[in-house]
Amino acid sequence: MAKLVFIRHGQSEWNLSNLFTGWVDVNLSEQGVAEAQAAGEKIKAAGIEFDQAYTSVLTRAIKTLHYALEGSDQLWVPEIKSWRLNERHYGALQGQNKAEAAAQFGEDQVLVWRRSYDTLPPLLSASDEGSAANDRRYADLDPKAIPGGENLKVTLERVIPFWEDEIAPKLLEGKNVIVAAHGNSLRALTKYIENISDADIMGVEMATGEPVVYDLDDKLNIVSKIKL
Amino acid sequence: MAKLVFIRHGQSEWNLSNLFTGWVDVNLSEQGVAEAQAAGEKIKAAGIEFDQAYTSVLTRAIKTLHYALEGSDQLWVPEIKSWRLNERHYGALQGQNKAEAAAQFGEDQVLVWRRSYDTLPPLLSASDEGSAANDRRYADLDPKAIPGGENLKVTLERVIPFWEDEIAPKLLEGKNVIVAAHGNSLRALTKYIENISDADIMGVEMATGEPVVYDLDDKLNIVSKIKL
Repeated sequence: MAKLVFIRHGQSEWNLSNLFTGWVDVNLSEQGVAEAQAAGEKIKAAGIEFDQAYTSVLTRAIKTLHYALEGSDQLWVPEIKSWRLNERHYGALQGQNKAEAAAQFGEDQVLVWRRSYDTLPPLLSASDEGSAANDRRYADLDPKAIPGGENLKVTLERVIPFWEDEIAPKLLEGKNVIVAAHGNSLRALTKYIENISDADIMGVEMATGEPVVYDLDDKLNIVSKIKL
Repeated sequence: MAKLVFIRHGQSEWNLSNLFTGWVDVNLSEQGVAEAQAAGEKIKAAGIEFDQAYTSVLTRAIKTLHYALEGSDQLWVPEIKSWRLNERHYGALQGQNKAEAAAQFGEDQVLVWRRSYDTLPPLLSASDEGSAANDRRYADLDPKAIPGGENLKVTLERVIPFWEDEIAPKLLEGKNVIVAAHGNSLRALTKYIENISDADIMGVEMATGEPVVYDLDDKLNIVSKIKL
């Protein structure tokens, strides 16, 4: 039996200003910090002790993890950061205001980009200023692996190898694991471990800063799921 | 050519109250947080970009690292925490007020414990309440490797394997590295890379929160050393 905890990062500065964020490395808002600190208190009150922590390479998720670990007196837990846990890449929409995008492309089109499982947003190319290809943190990544834009399907396809190679083996050893990540990378993991259909997954929404705790058996079947 | 940065954690709550700390997991003081944040600003101003970060499993060093990385916009840098970078274990003196210890054991004896390279402090046994053997973070460590108390010589002997196995290989690849640790684990590393004698090393003191930057050549010879 192992515990798996998902936590979606607290509110970010761009959540506040209603911008498409994706891989843009924006910080937590003040409220986001408070949410992450509260998550730490809840984990401490629940007495959950981790053996391994995972997060993305984006500041808002990393800081959420650190607040959650510090608040539960276990900042010393080993931590691995991976681009595979990053938020869905929102392509050329990144940095755009959601209302402005609706005015430019039509509300229906923007809704499709936001809610369809397998429709890609308008893509960024590697030469675009905002491309992750120009960001030092992805310098060791095969340029072909750097997305120009993703739907949830593509996000899931790059998240699951990390689950298979890193997270699942720890859980199978009986280790307790925390994953601090993003609305869509956690949606992908939730879809995978709960066997949710392509149609239903887009309706699943995690609250920011709210730890979701799974008890898993030794075949990684879900024994219980609670929210703290 | 690679850059190696040492940073001693900012002031801790027990530095303030003049207690022997060692492996006791005390937090940064407010001043300690400010020192660590200032270190991040200095690293940013110097334009130093890291490829790998190392720290101990003690909160005050981990938080110092996180402030230093966040302040220089590189919180995403991979981080490895190891007990081998912990502060010198101060044995049964841990938690004692330095003035009270002087009253109990004599000022000369306490000075020997603090300033001798190879005199051990009074030891803790594994059954003592304050022993690291009772701390979950060392659960994967061979019980024989858990110290009951260390001098700088013993500290150096457990720090250097980490240098040899983890830090030096990265530097030899030309990667830039930051090590956020403690007065005595950094003193051990400084002794080793600068070839300082047993007699001289106890007089070497690093300021809290002040980044020390080495440029190393491809044989790990020191080309330059500056303090930020």
